[in-house]
Amino acid sequence: MQSSRSKPCSCPSLKLREVVSMYLTMVAAFLVILVVALQGSAPPRQSDFPYKVPLDPEGLLELSWNVSYPQQAVHFQLLIRELQFGLLFGMSDRGEFENADLAVLWSDGHNSYFGDAWSDAKGQLHLDSQQDYQLLEAHRAPEGLYLLFRRSFSTCDPKDYLIEDGTVHLIYGILEKPVHSLQAINTSALHGGLQRVQLLKPNISIPELPSDMKSMEITAPDVVIPSQETTYWCYMAELPEGFPKHHIIMYEPVVTAGNEALVHHMEVFQCTARFDSFPRYNGPCDSKMKPDRLNYCRHVLAAWAMGAQAFYYPEEAGLAFGGPGSSRYLRLEIHYHNPLVFKGRRDSSGIRLYYTATLRPHDAGIMELGLVYTPVMAIPPGEDSFTLTGYCTDKCTQLALPAAGIRIFASQLHTHLAGRKVVTVLSRDGRERQVVNADGHYSPHFQEIRMLKEVVAVFPGDELITTCTYNTEDRSRATVGGFGILEEMCVNYVHYYPQTQLELCKSAVDPGYLHRYFNLVNRFNDEEICMCPQVSVPQQFYSIPWNTFNRDVLRSLYTFAPISMHCNKSSAVRFPGEWEKQPLPSITERLREPGPGCPPSSEPQPAAPVPLNLGQLRR
Amino acid sequence: MQSSRSKPCSCPSLKLREVVSMYLTMVAAFLVILVVALQGSAPPRQSDFPYKVPLDPEGLLELSWNVSYPQQAVHFQLLIRELQFGLLFGMSDRGEFENADLAVLWSDGHNSYFGDAWSDAKGQLHLDSQQDYQLLEAHRAPEGLYLLFRRSFSTCDPKDYLIEDGTVHLIYGILEKPVHSLQAINTSALHGGLQRVQLLKPNISIPELPSDMKSMEITAPDVVIPSQETTYWCYMAELPEGFPKHHIIMYEPVVTAGNEALVHHMEVFQCTARFDSFPRYNGPCDSKMKPDRLNYCRHVLAAWAMGAQAFYYPEEAGLAFGGPGSSRYLRLEIHYHNPLVFKGRRDSSGIRLYYTATLRPHDAGIMELGLVYTPVMAIPPGEDSFTLTGYCTDKCTQLALPAAGIRIFASQLHTHLAGRKVVTVLSRDGRERQVVNADGHYSPHFQEIRMLKEVVAVFPGDELITTCTYNTEDRSRATVGGFGILEEMCVNYVHYYPQTQLELCKSAVDPGYLHRYFNLVNRFNDEEICMCPQVSVPQQFYSIPWNTFNRDVLRSLYTFAPISMHCNKSSAVRFPGEWEKQPLPSITERLREPGPGCPPSSEPQPAAPVPLNLGQLRR
Repeated sequence: MQSSRSKPCSCPSLKLREVVSMYLTMVAAFLVILVVALQGSAPPRQSDFPYKVPLDPEGLLELSWNVSYPQQAVHFQLLIRELQFGLLFGMSDRGEFENADLAVLWSDGHNSYFGDAWSDAKGQLHLDSQQDYQLLEAHRAPEGLYLLFRRSFSTCDPKDYLIEDGTVHLIYGILEKPVHSLQAINTSALHGGLQRVQLLKPNISIPELPSDMKSMEITAPDVVIPSQETTYWCYMAELPEGFPKHHIIMYEPVVTAGNEALVHHMEVFQCTARFDSFPRYNGPCDSKMKPDRLNYCRHVLAAWAMGAQAFYYPEEAGLAFGGPGSSRYLRLEIHYHNPLVFKGRRDSSGIRLYYTATLRPHDAGIMELGLVYTPVMAIPPGEDSFTLTGYCTDKCTQLALPAAGIRIFASQLHTHLAGRKVVTVLSRDGRERQVVNADGHYSPHFQEIRMLKEVVAVFPGDELITTCTYNTEDRSRATVGGFGILEEMCVNYVHYYPQTQLELCKSAVDPGYLHRYFNLVNRFNDEEICMCPQVSVPQQFYSIPWNTFNRDVLRSLYTFAPISMHCNKSSAVRFPGEWEKQPLPSITERLREPGPGCPPSSEPQPAAPVPLNLGQLRR
Repeated sequence: MQSSRSKPCSCPSLKLREVVSMYLTMVAAFLVILVVALQGSAPPRQSDFPYKVPLDPEGLLELSWNVSYPQQAVHFQLLIRELQFGLLFGMSDRGEFENADLAVLWSDGHNSYFGDAWSDAKGQLHLDSQQDYQLLEAHRAPEGLYLLFRRSFSTCDPKDYLIEDGTVHLIYGILEKPVHSLQAINTSALHGGLQRVQLLKPNISIPELPSDMKSMEITAPDVVIPSQETTYWCYMAELPEGFPKHHIIMYEPVVTAGNEALVHHMEVFQCTARFDSFPRYNGPCDSKMKPDRLNYCRHVLAAWAMGAQAFYYPEEAGLAFGGPGSSRYLRLEIHYHNPLVFKGRRDSSGIRLYYTATLRPHDAGIMELGLVYTPVMAIPPGEDSFTLTGYCTDKCTQLALPAAGIRIFASQLHTHLAGRKVVTVLSRDGRERQVVNADGHYSPHFQEIRMLKEVVAVFPGDELITTCTYNTEDRSRATVGGFGILEEMCVNYVHYYPQTQLELCKSAVDPGYLHRYFNLVNRFNDEEICMCPQVSVPQQFYSIPWNTFNRDVLRSLYTFAPISMHCNKSSAVRFPGEWEKQPLPSITERLREPGPGCPPSSEPQPAAPVPLNLGQLRR
């Protein structure tokens, strides 16, 4: 069977040593071919890389990429406008330069090399034994050097980063001097930074858009970006008087050319219909001059963050705006991120809404899942990963969802500063069925509305379980649930259709059981924690001595005690029923953690740097 | 650099497709060579495989192996005395045929193949995408077919078993009919079994043996092995009268030829010096005829289990026996494992002790680490892996060990039937430094004395922390600590020198804190657990409703509450000092779990079965 294949040349008698030698020679030949291939290829087409993000605040490094789900790989195109002696590009858990997975282009001043490397806990670089950033092309163009390389989502190399859904912390570093070897590089000495993106964009087919579609730009009116690192800019816009009900079916960012690296994220909020009018405003959101009434403009119509593309509603649904019972007033909020403190930059960015008067079959709705904003849910200080879970129970979905169910098509995860991971799982009959949305590298500084890879159908009786992981290593007292920036939240805003009355499906631990916990801690530890009614729950949490027992038992309490359910029509109105002391949903079968599946065996990549012919680089 | 290597033939212009085609052709050529190589080689030498164990009770399958630490690989030589249509050989967590990692030799009646496979949760076989059992040789000899293959300790294939120190559960299955493909095999339909061995034998240089060394055989006097699956045979032997103090410096098994598959393990115990004489006995250990006094023969002199080799004491030490204060009486215990219920088999197996009158510098000693035998340490029912930890604290080692420290050179781990893992770690100044002995696949049915890979030095102030993992999924009530076979122990008998007065360095939770736990459980759960003094600790454990909270809090209690230390000269005499309500050792730095490090990139193995030319096999 094997012998029927043609041989490239006739070798009268093959011995094992010769075969090995042939193999090595072929690897060498392959490398030579690669070097040649890198020089003579056509420039890459723009359309091949639909996603684009600047890496640095000056926009000198620009990353474009595409995602191949069949290949389970990402193709990166890096444009380096001013190449010095190379650069590092890579990924790490939370954007740190230690324990990072890196593609490195470096030059000793004469020759240039490309390799897959990793940085150790001290930031020192090492060549990877397995080369998983595969260089496909290097090309000089008038605007700079293009590097095109490929990376599988998952490699078998334990030193490699696993590319997953959700946020990816990209890092870059500039080599400003020649380096004689990869091992001579230490990331701590480099000029560099981080950029958060959702690398694995969902592969969604764009719904057909109606012919009567109109658009409306909600943009900042020629704002001078303040010369400070962080500005939240607020601008009030108005819909025309008598603007009837429409469906927003798509929106996209409008970013002023040249400001791509400064406009971090933007949101359009609709104001409450409670007030007939709202004052005009155009200024920083934290200004004393900002009218208080603007705080009543909180209903999200559109949200965009760096690296995101247009947002499309599914063809069956649109987001209602205009018409009776809906405010004419909109608030645009832009987060300018200006770490280099550029002065006098003018900006007219914003969001372009596409809408239609031909209403689609369903209004889209937004539902809040997760934890109630209450101090009974607390995180001890000094925890590196403490989880809290909020439930939307079968009893609530049974009562509030239509028999045909709802379809969740997008999701926005939300915590305050201690949040590190968020995941919502759908469970049916005690068995976890599907991840609704998960972000294992969640950052509170990067809260996008994300279209889901797959629309999730939720039926009456289903359970939606949202778990947040927090890090409080930098805190010295307990972090309780609440609205404050140093308090915590655990929320998933899910976007779905058809809209129902259910606005909020969240839980918190039963306060009676929390009281038992305070009692138990008091007795077990011979401590004096005041149980008097005038002492607030936060105060009781602040007075707990956080030994391992009290930490562990709080964790056990949260995974055991009954819950108080908020199954609400609006934030204050519950559906009728008994919602106190409800049993925790019991899960008999969990979804398997996605293992680090190795890629289907591909060509072995040599564990050696690939030489590049880039000519001599500037000093 | 690359182009300087000589090419086996000149190929004027290589394109990528051609390179790939060449590669594939070479793989094919390699296979053909392999088939040829398998036929014409010399028979393997015995000395290449120092370790040997029969796999089946009839001894038709015999495994020999060696361990290469530089290569991080095991070479297996399997002798198949009566080959039918192939066989399975492999490894799994606890000897089960599901989720196993298997090397498979199979024949469709005409052609034979070898491949690396895995079995799924239903026992169905699948070819591994990465072939990590590498066939090196297949050779027919008069006694049967020899298969020689190699396996790295660790592969990058998540389907593969990770070969670690400690017990490995080997499994085998016989193919009694031709099979048309690997996928047609289901392990549930096979005749097969399991054999436990320590695969990674330590690579210890054998100490020089003195010229005046003598030997003494303690063997069963022509015993007829009972025709029942399990027999513990007891035989009393005597040292000569006036036998002076000697040092045992080595011992080895003496197994009657033909009974290699029946003699499971053997131990020689010395009797207590409390009694001047002991009765003679030669019979089953559980016989009513056995004199009670034999229960006072429990001091281990030597222990051997299947697959083990000779045991050598380090050159600085020997195990004292003989002389004043030492009993002349020895008890030999042999575990016969006779699952096929052979009748009339005669056996004279035992242990050969090698000893010298020229005493070595140090007497060896045995110290018990782990948990005190007390019901306060309990395991809830229905747990798949519940851990209990026993401590030998800095305070005890400070008091009891000599300034120059002791050297641990061997270890015997011990639990009762629920034990699944045992590990002892040495900690110094709050930092875990070294694993003394670890078995992640521990079986209570395979308790060897194991020589350590590296001698462990323990100094005053060091801590020795022993953790046992239990499985109580088949139990309906709590398992408490104690002597009974359905109670549990967590012990590491460490063999060390120089001998000290410290015989026992073990701990248990403070009983007062356990009482607080019972109280807390009672209050929190609104349950009635009788706290009356007449109710025993086991009774209180048996009455606990085992919800997740009570389980979790027990776990938290054991990792938090102070301990009662047994820092004892003998089982009843403590060193002077305060040993109650001692703080738990605090560990600030843990040893890193050994990751599944991938082997240094070796030749890629094709993901296809290797054809073998074995001729037509018998039906």
